[in-house]
Amino acid sequence: MKKHNFGAGPCILPQEVFESASKAIIDFDNSGLSILEISHRSDAFVEVMETARSLALELLGLENRGYQALFLQGGASFQFVMVAYNLLEKKAGYLNTGRWANNAIIEASKFGEVVELGTSIDKGYNYIPEVTSVPNDLDYLHYTSNNTIAGTQMQHFPKGNAPIVIDMSSDIYSRDIDYSQFDLIYAGAQKNIGPAGATLVVIKEEILGKVSRVIPSIMDYRNLIDKKSMFNTPSTFSVYTSMLNLKWLKKQGGVSVMDKLNKEKANLLYEEIDRNPLFTAKVPNKNDRSTMNVAFQLNKKELESKFSTLYKEAGVHGIKGHRTVGGYRASLYNALPLSSVKVLVDVMRELEKTS
Amino acid sequence: MKKHNFGAGPCILPQEVFESASKAIIDFDNSGLSILEISHRSDAFVEVMETARSLALELLGLENRGYQALFLQGGASFQFVMVAYNLLEKKAGYLNTGRWANNAIIEASKFGEVVELGTSIDKGYNYIPEVTSVPNDLDYLHYTSNNTIAGTQMQHFPKGNAPIVIDMSSDIYSRDIDYSQFDLIYAGAQKNIGPAGATLVVIKEEILGKVSRVIPSIMDYRNLIDKKSMFNTPSTFSVYTSMLNLKWLKKQGGVSVMDKLNKEKANLLYEEIDRNPLFTAKVPNKNDRSTMNVAFQLNKKELESKFSTLYKEAGVHGIKGHRTVGGYRASLYNALPLSSVKVLVDVMRELEKTS
Repeated sequence: MKKHNFGAGPCILPQEVFESASKAIIDFDNSGLSILEISHRSDAFVEVMETARSLALELLGLENRGYQALFLQGGASFQFVMVAYNLLEKKAGYLNTGRWANNAIIEASKFGEVVELGTSIDKGYNYIPEVTSVPNDLDYLHYTSNNTIAGTQMQHFPKGNAPIVIDMSSDIYSRDIDYSQFDLIYAGAQKNIGPAGATLVVIKEEILGKVSRVIPSIMDYRNLIDKKSMFNTPSTFSVYTSMLNLKWLKKQGGVSVMDKLNKEKANLLYEEIDRNPLFTAKVPNKNDRSTMNVAFQLNKKELESKFSTLYKEAGVHGIKGHRTVGGYRASLYNALPLSSVKVLVDVMRELEKTS
Repeated sequence: MKKHNFGAGPCILPQEVFESASKAIIDFDNSGLSILEISHRSDAFVEVMETARSLALELLGLENRGYQALFLQGGASFQFVMVAYNLLEKKAGYLNTGRWANNAIIEASKFGEVVELGTSIDKGYNYIPEVTSVPNDLDYLHYTSNNTIAGTQMQHFPKGNAPIVIDMSSDIYSRDIDYSQFDLIYAGAQKNIGPAGATLVVIKEEILGKVSRVIPSIMDYRNLIDKKSMFNTPSTFSVYTSMLNLKWLKKQGGVSVMDKLNKEKANLLYEEIDRNPLFTAKVPNKNDRSTMNVAFQLNKKELESKFSTLYKEAGVHGIKGHRTVGGYRASLYNALPLSSVKVLVDVMRELEKTS
């Protein structure tokens, strides 16, 4: 039985993407070769990379607007370092909205001064803090648009007079917003882009070249742009499968269609959590709730094992909360169908009825 | 028709590895989930990572000898930076044997003084330079064991009183040498380890913790060891497929069996190149010739298109030389069978007969 995969990442991708990727490992485009054994400098792979880069921009509405897309390695955690290396001359402003935002602050602090624009650490990151003022001497502002562990999501992005850098690892391509308000967007692929092993970075070129520090070649965005994301061997399979997934996304109608579907999925689940007396949402303020990661608690600890039995019988996978916070978390990434959410909601109702 | 893939990398892997990897993308170990959609923190994936790390050491004869194996991202090019970041306090010695060795020098120079222990740049890197003296105030010595572009390979590794760091991207697991003479070995996976997207680093722990520089968490070997190669989401599919390939290697009998097979393949091809008046080996000194990358020239330019037609008809793929040097290069990685080399040799004889 195919599972209903609510895992937080690496996560579900469309079944047709799995099927095409699986085939390409045996024979890539009738070449007689596996996608794993072709040169990244071959015409065939260069086309894969260029298609992926181009779709990455197009689906964000950022083509021909001064942006470049790169498929790098090392995940968002490596971007915590690269962003600071490339942009932090003296001082940057970070909004501390979760564990990953906090890790970004820790790494950036190794390269310059970090001003916290706000924090929600006082309540276990269960809300989005207000930004009351933005200093005017910052090199950039840094936000985390969606907090995968806490289950919060930013709805608006305060501006200053500096470029906005944003970690969108867990909600890029999931919602219809104006992506051009950001100057640098980064995201680990393993949620809505593709398999783990690739990291998408979308950069407005004009923000680069303003720090005095000597930058290692492989960490220098200008060099990576110049080399069309092929300074060295990329994570070829992850880029290929990301391309397949971005093509799927385009075929579905792009982010506006996903936005609608994701809101529908999230509303259905939050409504059940709010209605069902056995459950409580971890994020009290509805405006701060993530459409991607729905964090909730079971109010009666003694029902845990019954809940677990019921949801496993229904094929529900991956709803345990992050190891650092416990509870439950249902992730509703683009490829998760509405029908899977209905199955989970039915299980929650079943638990209520029989308890 | 399945091709005879002599590509320099990403390169041929065993057919059974392709088949298992392809299946796991549809259903990983009868879990009902794709290997691409499971959490890296799941028991199943932690076992994959631990098996890969353990096999990586075992096959080098380095288990229980103070070494740790890590599967990282970013390729050897990122290790050029990480090695310097973690080990270079004042001065390091590098042997300049090729383009990648030279790139390693360029990156290390951003972090400290680099002493060239020797260079073969005067002859297009077509020989291994002698190391006539090793200064005794170095933080480490750096070698590139096999030069993928030039087709040279080091046979012995001069010692000093400092740790030896070695880039073995293109010949790790291909030959039976004493790997314990090295203190840090790194290798992009995409030759004899697995698909692109993973980088193996094998470190003797005692050499770490001796620099004063502040190291970003994701670049700090001590942190990565502490987190068992899971500081952040690894390139899961590349690690999984590397594990499959290392299991295959063990089943074949390990590096000693590969050593014998690779020498047989290389001897067959070099003998034909030396015998056939139409061809010349690019590396004149037989002791310096690589068993992994056989670089050669066709002496009559006018026969190029005929040679190309003949080898393509025979299913031979990937023997064009590196884009920066031209000519031909046949890569004979572990998974390439002797029968493929025989096909290429037959084509070379056919060209001689009919020209």
